[in-house]
Amino acid sequence: MIIRHYTEVEEIIPEEQGVNKVKMRRVIAEKEGAENFVMRVFEIEPGGNTPLHSHTWEHEVFILSGTGIVVDQLGENEVKTGDVVFVPGEEKHQFRNPGDKPWEFICLIPMRK
Amino acid sequence: MIIRHYTEVEEIIPEEQGVNKVKMRRVIAEKEGAENFVMRVFEIEPGGNTPLHSHTWEHEVFILSGTGIVVDQLGENEVKTGDVVFVPGEEKHQFRNPGDKPWEFICLIPMRK
Repeated sequence: MIIRHYTEVEEIIPEEQGVNKVKMRRVIAEKEGAENFVMRVFEIEPGGNTPLHSHTWEHEVFILSGTGIVVDQLGENEVKTGDVVFVPGEEKHQFRNPGDKPWEFICLIPMRK
Repeated sequence: MIIRHYTEVEEIIPEEQGVNKVKMRRVIAEKEGAENFVMRVFEIEPGGNTPLHSHTWEHEVFILSGTGIVVDQLGENEVKTGDVVFVPGEEKHQFRNPGDKPWEFICLIPMRK
């Protein structure tokens, strides 16, 4: 069993194109022995965003703190603490923080095998 | 894309033996289109617990609010908001709330195929 506070896990600045003011921690991943899915904690700073993109794999998201915008094909959706978001594979999506406070959420993905 | 507050999802009282004062919501599961892993939100009331057991699949846990005890082979571990717990498959574990406030956490499991 591994137990630790999520802030003890190294912070990564994703370098993918279109990622802006985003920090990520891979809190439960290969290194910890996970074999099926990966838990990441994201922080998007005010004015930050992920790219508007799609991919084959899904996202399972839980909003930890703050508010933000999740964009889908139909437009913008405001989300708040305690909201849950399921983004199926192949669906276009973007996470944006237009506010003035950091926005934190958990985002899980299947392990790429 | 599905977006909703976790409290909008139906609450289930697990009926498994050894489960005491526990409520569960399957917030992202088969019904939502998940194919690889399931997100559940648990609330353990004061004095409640899950059974001390093991199984083939892993748990990926994030503590949302409150404090509680996670038991492993070596004994009791106190956890608090923001702690992350990885329980590998086949490892004995139990979740207990000896406090006087509800304890909430996310617990993900792989889909049983």
